Amino acid sequence: MSAARKSITLEGRFGMHRGGSIESPTLAYETWGALNERGDNAILIFSGLSPSAHAASSPEDPSAGWWEDMIGSGQALDIDRYYIICINSLGSCFGSTGPASINPETGKVYRLDFPVLTLEDVANAAHGVVKALGIECLHAVVGCSMGGMTGLAYCIRHPGATRAFVSISSATRAEPFSIAVRSLQREMIRTDPKWKNGNYDPDDPPIVGQRLARKLGMITYRSAEEWRGRFGRERATGEGGTGDRFKIEFSVESYLDYQAQKFTGGFDPNCYLYLSHASDLFDLAEYGGSLQSAFRRLELEKTLVVGVTTDILFPIHQQRELAAGFAEVVDDAELVELDCIRGHDSFLVEMDAFRPVLCDFFDSHCPESA
Amino acid sequence: MSAARKSITLEGRFGMHRGGSIESPTLAYETWGALNERGDNAILIFSGLSPSAHAASSPEDPSAGWWEDMIGSGQALDIDRYYIICINSLGSCFGSTGPASINPETGKVYRLDFPVLTLEDVANAAHGVVKALGIECLHAVVGCSMGGMTGLAYCIRHPGATRAFVSISSATRAEPFSIAVRSLQREMIRTDPKWKNGNYDPDDPPIVGQRLARKLGMITYRSAEEWRGRFGRERATGEGGTGDRFKIEFSVESYLDYQAQKFTGGFDPNCYLYLSHASDLFDLAEYGGSLQSAFRRLELEKTLVVGVTTDILFPIHQQRELAAGFAEVVDDAELVELDCIRGHDSFLVEMDAFRPVLCDFFDSHCPESA
Repeated sequence: MSAARKSITLEGRFGMHRGGSIESPTLAYETWGALNERGDNAILIFSGLSPSAHAASSPEDPSAGWWEDMIGSGQALDIDRYYIICINSLGSCFGSTGPASINPETGKVYRLDFPVLTLEDVANAAHGVVKALGIECLHAVVGCSMGGMTGLAYCIRHPGATRAFVSISSATRAEPFSIAVRSLQREMIRTDPKWKNGNYDPDDPPIVGQRLARKLGMITYRSAEEWRGRFGRERATGEGGTGDRFKIEFSVESYLDYQAQKFTGGFDPNCYLYLSHASDLFDLAEYGGSLQSAFRRLELEKTLVVGVTTDILFPIHQQRELAAGFAEVVDDAELVELDCIRGHDSFLVEMDAFRPVLCDFFDSHCPESA
Repeated sequence: MSAARKSITLEGRFGMHRGGSIESPTLAYETWGALNERGDNAILIFSGLSPSAHAASSPEDPSAGWWEDMIGSGQALDIDRYYIICINSLGSCFGSTGPASINPETGKVYRLDFPVLTLEDVANAAHGVVKALGIECLHAVVGCSMGGMTGLAYCIRHPGATRAFVSISSATRAEPFSIAVRSLQREMIRTDPKWKNGNYDPDDPPIVGQRLARKLGMITYRSAEEWRGRFGRERATGEGGTGDRFKIEFSVESYLDYQAQKFTGGFDPNCYLYLSHASDLFDLAEYGGSLQSAFRRLELEKTLVVGVTTDILFPIHQQRELAAGFAEVVDDAELVELDCIRGHDSFLVEMDAFRPVLCDFFDSHCPESA
């Protein structure tokens, strides 16, 4: 079992999908397992908007990763058989080049001088890393949430670069409900006076707007069903000042507050804005003018679409649309609808539901669930 | 046909449900039609959080009301047969006493010195108005959205004060999803630096926070289905500055912006906070310790619950819960589930669906829909 935390710099001008270019972007990535001699056992994982490349623990970084229970020896993504790669998205802030990075041409932080980011750019940068690792064709691309759309961008921009594709709680493109939510989240950050049109003091970021955005995120990442059973009308204890007319009263408010506190320290606000915007912009139908035409451009042998019935951000009918599109052009196209109650976030927290599905797909022998 | 815009002051101390009291609150109201000699044809309407008492046009105010197509001669709420009353909620800012009113004891605006507001207070104040109008027992109470919970408070605090009750897109109490949404809306306003802990300059209110709150409101008042058909991924035209990296790109963003602009000029931020908070606090189960016990305290002859399958703020299972509770204690208890796609707001915009239901209930002869 080998593991590594690395980065690769793509030397030269990197042209951006919507125009402009950046100089020699760096991509942080982590790997687990080893590339076999034929070089055909690599699986590339695209994360959602906020995670780093640290999808699982490793000797170099024993802290739990964001998909810890999915990647490992004998797990669904079995590192004894596969070479697993996770790349921090271009535009993010965990080692990869993005709006919070120094622009080598000016010596200053990019901030809003960073060109418009699209998921095509995230996919193209990842493709550069995969090529640099000497991999001609991936065994599979696995994309979760935003990462599913990045994965679609990867497959359609680089036909033949992967044999299989797994989309988890993602879609061909964002619908207006999700666009509205993300647009409002961005507005929350942009209207925080401390954002200063992107020129915030790193020691005094627009934390108020970021916290509001995170709370709205949590409302759309989970489900009303889950919260009904988990919180009901339970009261919070010991919250708020006694003089505060609108202090926290219910447990669900306290939960959101805790989640927002936990998140907002770690993520650069400008990077968040760029990646959120990129999620709105992606549209598979731009390839050929319709979804049907776009699907025909794909060169995949096997696909799996996994979705959750309580997901309001990437709803189940979008899972069906994606799976139906694959079924038109791929011999082995599977759809799995899961009844998890934790909404969009289920793929991060309902391992007992997701693990068997991915074990099946990757022909792994998963440990029994606890 | 008579119509009037009036107000009544409830002289003396008005004790509040959660403690404290206010001096001689004034309630603004409008009426349509005339009280008959037996005094048994009055229908009281409780509005949602934001509307005024102007539910329909009248000779004094010919502008369209918020339920214009439901109230009138020959309409579902037929003013040739019924005496319709709509009262601006206690705590609101359209003529009724609330946090934006002058406290007669200090000569200053209440602001956050206004006591905690509950829907019981809104109901009790309305009951005072009804008594002052000489009405012993209402023909019916009709409550929409928050007003449905106010109506429940009216029925349970004043048993026998109405024979019938109509709940429209409401519930026995808020669930955690709705509490989370409203709590976040309040936080958006409270974190706007211009809110100043409630002491904002009336000429320079926390409009940024109010607009964010309104946009989140719109996201929960409508439905993803409606927006999918209405906006899809249509682009907005002519919005945003060219120098704005995150300018409005999609029609749905433009729509939200327009809706927020339209709303936020008119509503006092502190009043909004108080009424929003009151919506979270109400819980029918507080009467007797369980919903079952609470329903047993009601003295109603006839009930109607109308809900919409795409409503995410007062979801359909809450309509069923309410109707089932009524069915246990009321001989004539009806539930109507409507398949409208405009979510919670359907009762304001899908008149062709709602009108026949209310016509049936009130035995009115409605005009054919266009």
